[in-house]
Amino acid sequence: MRITRPTLLLDHNKCKNNIKRMTGKAKKIGLSLRPHFKTHQSAVISHWLREEGITKCTVSSVKMAEYFASHGWKDILIAFPVNILEYEKINELTSEIDLSILVYDEQAIKLLSERVRGPLGVKIELDLGSHRSGLEVGDTGAINNLLKTIEEISSYQFTGFYSHPGHTYTARGRDEVLKIYHKVMDQLKSLKEKYRDTPGFSITIGDTPGASIAVDFGPVEEISPGNFIFYDVMQVNIGSCTYDDIAVVVACPVVGKNNKTKELLIHGGAVHFSKEALQDTDGTIHYGKLAVSDKDGWLGHEEGVYLKSISQEHGLLKCTPEFFNDANIGDIVYVYPAHSCLTADLFKSYLLTDGAMLDDEKGFMK
Amino acid sequence: MRITRPTLLLDHNKCKNNIKRMTGKAKKIGLSLRPHFKTHQSAVISHWLREEGITKCTVSSVKMAEYFASHGWKDILIAFPVNILEYEKINELTSEIDLSILVYDEQAIKLLSERVRGPLGVKIELDLGSHRSGLEVGDTGAINNLLKTIEEISSYQFTGFYSHPGHTYTARGRDEVLKIYHKVMDQLKSLKEKYRDTPGFSITIGDTPGASIAVDFGPVEEISPGNFIFYDVMQVNIGSCTYDDIAVVVACPVVGKNNKTKELLIHGGAVHFSKEALQDTDGTIHYGKLAVSDKDGWLGHEEGVYLKSISQEHGLLKCTPEFFNDANIGDIVYVYPAHSCLTADLFKSYLLTDGAMLDDEKGFMK
Repeated sequence: MRITRPTLLLDHNKCKNNIKRMTGKAKKIGLSLRPHFKTHQSAVISHWLREEGITKCTVSSVKMAEYFASHGWKDILIAFPVNILEYEKINELTSEIDLSILVYDEQAIKLLSERVRGPLGVKIELDLGSHRSGLEVGDTGAINNLLKTIEEISSYQFTGFYSHPGHTYTARGRDEVLKIYHKVMDQLKSLKEKYRDTPGFSITIGDTPGASIAVDFGPVEEISPGNFIFYDVMQVNIGSCTYDDIAVVVACPVVGKNNKTKELLIHGGAVHFSKEALQDTDGTIHYGKLAVSDKDGWLGHEEGVYLKSISQEHGLLKCTPEFFNDANIGDIVYVYPAHSCLTADLFKSYLLTDGAMLDDEKGFMK
Repeated sequence: MRITRPTLLLDHNKCKNNIKRMTGKAKKIGLSLRPHFKTHQSAVISHWLREEGITKCTVSSVKMAEYFASHGWKDILIAFPVNILEYEKINELTSEIDLSILVYDEQAIKLLSERVRGPLGVKIELDLGSHRSGLEVGDTGAINNLLKTIEEISSYQFTGFYSHPGHTYTARGRDEVLKIYHKVMDQLKSLKEKYRDTPGFSITIGDTPGASIAVDFGPVEEISPGNFIFYDVMQVNIGSCTYDDIAVVVACPVVGKNNKTKELLIHGGAVHFSKEALQDTDGTIHYGKLAVSDKDGWLGHEEGVYLKSISQEHGLLKCTPEFFNDANIGDIVYVYPAHSCLTADLFKSYLLTDGAMLDDEKGFMK
């Protein structure tokens, strides 16, 4: 297929390597793997995980649970604090698959129990430091109340604790991730001491930096990273991967050469990359980095070439003098996204390097 | 329709009032109006503009031109530096409608002329201070070369100068917008002095802050704002509108009450709002503000209540103590987007306040 406009390319070999590395690591350490599907949102890609022995998954919305249930996934965790307004769809799902939901607010589970019959697995969400949602490990009163409430609903079953230690995303380098994980494991060990005898006890955590870098998962039984399947510049900055591991790039046409600033204007903006900005350790703010590419694909990155600003459809590429001089109107450049989850969600399609197209007709959530 | 998940609501009365205000202003000042359709991307909404006498439009991509051409628009400007790789589709469009494209790079128009037969209107893009794309008014050499190149292509017709003075988006308050416009008009007056006798000469500029606030448009003949149709918090901060004018809100379910921080967790994140962050004059960074709402709709905003952080599907709402205490799990809150263009693009659908749904089956670009 000739590329004429912004197109999300997926190198399925890199993607499958990322899958194999994570399934291999989980197996070696003895962790159960319940990958998060919010990154790819694709039935076809979920099949690549199934080929590596994965039988359960994590999603971030009821809608996403419906999509993957309709594509053969029978054990799904909706890792988003349950939205009681969607009780009708949750009821439908409980009759079809093994569904687990997340809760940290007692009121939510009480209201849910009036509307959702079950059977339903319930995980309690913990806040291990990301301060987004969940109960603190030390908040024994609230945890005990929640456990009691779940226990009293006969058709609901407590299936363990869940946390997204998203503060690993603030780390710069592997040591910082490990330091955060060290504290996370301390908290989880104390949790296990208190609740190991509670029926259904188990611990799931899900973040790509930790899942990629850590080797000591303490009392954790299950991990649910999502982004590792593609990776992105954010993960390179954190230290989770190298540029060579990034399985997606946005192919962008060059539409202008700004001679005064030596910047290239490309078709590729906020409707393709979202507005996720990254700050490198040297202070540079950008929305993506340029891949070195040839006819066989992409590898590494062009030092000093990055997406310095974006508006709805425009992207301005900061260049080295050499890169600027070599570029021509009508060229295609390949940009690693700052955050591949949001980029994939915006495109809702992938052009595979073998020429196949995964879109909403075939292989992407509508 | 019962709202159970994040939903983009559109108050068609507010939207039509915004349309009437802009068409009325253009008429009064004697400006031609070629609204930008990248904000709404909707055939149904474009019809509301037609009802007010609008017969021409601006779009930001070839794909968008195709969509609106297929919905009866016969005079379309693609206000994005022409992407020569899309020559096949441009050729199809030129045979169907009056198409104008934008160019500032001589190489681009030369390459285009080898592939696109025409007839084709060509506007030269100017950079009046936004430093994204376009030639500087003072760069007479480059402008003259470009004019000459266009003139030499017999089937192409120069149709004037175009600029998006996007630096008005950095303004805080009407006075700053007017100050920027004052400089813009000075540049355009000098342009007119040089090129008024060039066949096809005219000036189009397009930005919502200027179009909303300015009264003196100097030598400008045509304006092409887009965002005014909905407005958003960014435009409130600039001074283009008040909260009462914002025609869209995202309805978000409340899924958690974080008692320690007194923040609400809502279903509403980067896949709904993009990652467009705004900084208020008091330094507050946010992704949207809360509307005051009742069964009839929304008006004004809840002082002190805003979207302080977002991840893929999660939003954290900073609250006043009163707002926090009054909120319940399962409530719906209404959030004005920071940037309505990106929000509309992410939803690709609108629920009208009269209950009608505009989506890709009916009234939104696929």
